[in-house]
Amino acid sequence: MNTEDNVDALGSQDQDIDYTLLGHDIMQRAEVLAQHTEQAGMMTRTYLTAAHVAAAAQIEAWMQDAGMTVRRDATGNVIGRYEGTDQHLPMLMTGSHFDTVRNGGKYDGPLGILLPIACIDAWNKLGRRFPFPVEVVAFCEEEGVRFKAPLLGSRAITGTFDYAVLDNQDSDGMTMREAMTAEGLDPESLPSAAMPSDSVAAYLEIHIEQGPVLLEENLALGVVTAISGSTRFILELEGLAGHAGTVPMSSRHDAAMAGAEIALYIERRCTAAAGLVGTVGQFNVPNGAGNVIPGKAVISIDIRAGDDALRIEAVDDIQTEITRITTRRGVRPHLIKTYEAASVACADWLQARLAESMQRHGCPPLSLPSGAGHDAMIIADIAPVAMLFVRCGNGGISHHPRETMTAEDAAMAAQVFADFAENFSVPDRQ
Amino acid sequence: MNTEDNVDALGSQDQDIDYTLLGHDIMQRAEVLAQHTEQAGMMTRTYLTAAHVAAAAQIEAWMQDAGMTVRRDATGNVIGRYEGTDQHLPMLMTGSHFDTVRNGGKYDGPLGILLPIACIDAWNKLGRRFPFPVEVVAFCEEEGVRFKAPLLGSRAITGTFDYAVLDNQDSDGMTMREAMTAEGLDPESLPSAAMPSDSVAAYLEIHIEQGPVLLEENLALGVVTAISGSTRFILELEGLAGHAGTVPMSSRHDAAMAGAEIALYIERRCTAAAGLVGTVGQFNVPNGAGNVIPGKAVISIDIRAGDDALRIEAVDDIQTEITRITTRRGVRPHLIKTYEAASVACADWLQARLAESMQRHGCPPLSLPSGAGHDAMIIADIAPVAMLFVRCGNGGISHHPRETMTAEDAAMAAQVFADFAENFSVPDRQ
Repeated sequence: MNTEDNVDALGSQDQDIDYTLLGHDIMQRAEVLAQHTEQAGMMTRTYLTAAHVAAAAQIEAWMQDAGMTVRRDATGNVIGRYEGTDQHLPMLMTGSHFDTVRNGGKYDGPLGILLPIACIDAWNKLGRRFPFPVEVVAFCEEEGVRFKAPLLGSRAITGTFDYAVLDNQDSDGMTMREAMTAEGLDPESLPSAAMPSDSVAAYLEIHIEQGPVLLEENLALGVVTAISGSTRFILELEGLAGHAGTVPMSSRHDAAMAGAEIALYIERRCTAAAGLVGTVGQFNVPNGAGNVIPGKAVISIDIRAGDDALRIEAVDDIQTEITRITTRRGVRPHLIKTYEAASVACADWLQARLAESMQRHGCPPLSLPSGAGHDAMIIADIAPVAMLFVRCGNGGISHHPRETMTAEDAAMAAQVFADFAENFSVPDRQ
Repeated sequence: MNTEDNVDALGSQDQDIDYTLLGHDIMQRAEVLAQHTEQAGMMTRTYLTAAHVAAAAQIEAWMQDAGMTVRRDATGNVIGRYEGTDQHLPMLMTGSHFDTVRNGGKYDGPLGILLPIACIDAWNKLGRRFPFPVEVVAFCEEEGVRFKAPLLGSRAITGTFDYAVLDNQDSDGMTMREAMTAEGLDPESLPSAAMPSDSVAAYLEIHIEQGPVLLEENLALGVVTAISGSTRFILELEGLAGHAGTVPMSSRHDAAMAGAEIALYIERRCTAAAGLVGTVGQFNVPNGAGNVIPGKAVISIDIRAGDDALRIEAVDDIQTEITRITTRRGVRPHLIKTYEAASVACADWLQARLAESMQRHGCPPLSLPSGAGHDAMIIADIAPVAMLFVRCGNGGISHHPRETMTAEDAAMAAQVFADFAENFSVPDRQ
């Protein structure tokens, strides 16, 4: 991996750009983009709503101002191209998504679009250009909120779009196909959104961490090693309802107690291994009443790890323990696997380049897995991928209005991104 | 308690009554009464609905057929009086309630009305009469479903009706006062429903057990020692929401895990002491999602024991443990006590009489506390009370359509009730 095509980069010209100012510019753009929301006072922007369409127009305008040529593909991805000096080189792709969860944050997604636009705007003003083209992809849809189908934008680009989801309906009964047609997007031409693998040299996604690791380590940036694989279940527990006052403790088959014991086992099991996380995000006793022993309980289980073997071993242990606990308690388990995905590794050589860029700017290159899914894990189908995480404030909270980050960290991320681009070249053998 | 006024009883004349037939008669009446429901295919009969009013009319008709004089008081209690031969003796009161929970059972309440009516009907046909009068009270309201105020009927009779609840509204916004007036009941005359203490020699309530103890002991009947005292809480737990994939296990403040640990402590603590029960009937993560660490969880806590000291000690321990668990986990507890009531003892001399009647009919007189509340605990304000529990089928399930009992057990309970009545007399000193 050390022998590389030495593409002529323009070298570091950081002295020309005021990154402190650029950091504030990025934060300001995030504020402006956040105005495009479905509900005032709340950050909600789901696929092809009026707010989403307006945000796309804003991003397109910024891309054009920054000297990019802009196109929209059949899913509504907004793609800005900053031409290189060498027509024959594959692109450096970057970007992230501009849809949000309901009542989410301003940076989850947009940061990875606005930061490259701000940098390219600065380069363009200075006439700075790389040998290779840079494309900024504003992915139209990653969260999967409106049509319960995530990662639509990156799936279109990698040619892995599942056409069945075109018939998915939103909560008003409108299908995705109808929503696309209403916005002038042609579902029939979705295949044309796919990009050939040899057109993309690498994909780098800049994203807010959405967790507390960098905050706790007191670091602005981190290099992602892999996007964790995950296994998710819904576990329905069927016990025996009874009167809270009349059934002795020894005669009970309490579904919620079985759920509580399983939840605590999951916590214990996942705490025991570094790099493994397990979450019971839903815990519900349907129609529960204070004076009724729960006859039914429903819990969700979400197990993730960067290392697939670690995850699979944990899932096996949890399944064994579910059997053991429910058998002992006389409660019937119905375990439904709702999702499973292997981890996606970030390319070693891209991680190394990012680490070098960070070190050149005084950032210790902490490596960490991404527990959340991102467009990068889909783009990995057609290109080597990397991710740069930016510190998340407020204890690392995300998917929440309190999600926050600082202009200083945005400035540092912009500097590292610029350094990475300026030193970018594709190694002989990836 | 052994020196008694020896009131002339007519002695056991069981040979005249076919109790097997009587058991089937009781079951048949329960089926007929169950036709009066707010929703077909479901047993729901709440205070002063059309179904409730129709049920009252049916009960009144049966009482009249059985030779009783019937009156209705200001709350809608239906009271049938079977006159005694001695005008000076206070009554033996019996009865139970004819309202139900939503989608409840056919026997919880009605059994304690229909069984005495069937017995009195049989006695009346034979011209059998006791020295003392027997009053059967069909309490109009015990469950508290429609207006979120329970035990209305027995509170009216004991003069402890809380007039503030007249302004409680049902889910359609109708007040209890309006509902009463619409049915021709006069809220102003509620005080007239109160019965003087010296008019009631004793109150015996026959009730389905609503638990599995008799079923597991293979016994038809049980003598209730006390109606358990109870303490109830709602516990709101406030942790820190976070992304299920991105927050390491060690950095979490998971509200649901705190709830799970507290729930299992309650189970452990209450299992450790006989006669104590503890239930977490509600366990909910509001707006929980599989990929979000619960920032909030709400659980209910219900602790009951026949022995108040046992309950209070357990509640103290649980509160200590809530503090310990939430402190360790960095989760904030908001513990709201929603209800607290001391236990109500059944009169020793009445328990002894019931046990004697049971033994005379080959029933081992098992004693057990009532974990559920009943009208008897209110009537205890004006009279010594006793309760006879009847075996509950289907694992002891109640407040549920699968609540069931057998005609054989109804027959045995009728035989014991008749024996109890025939041998009833008030001791000199209670």
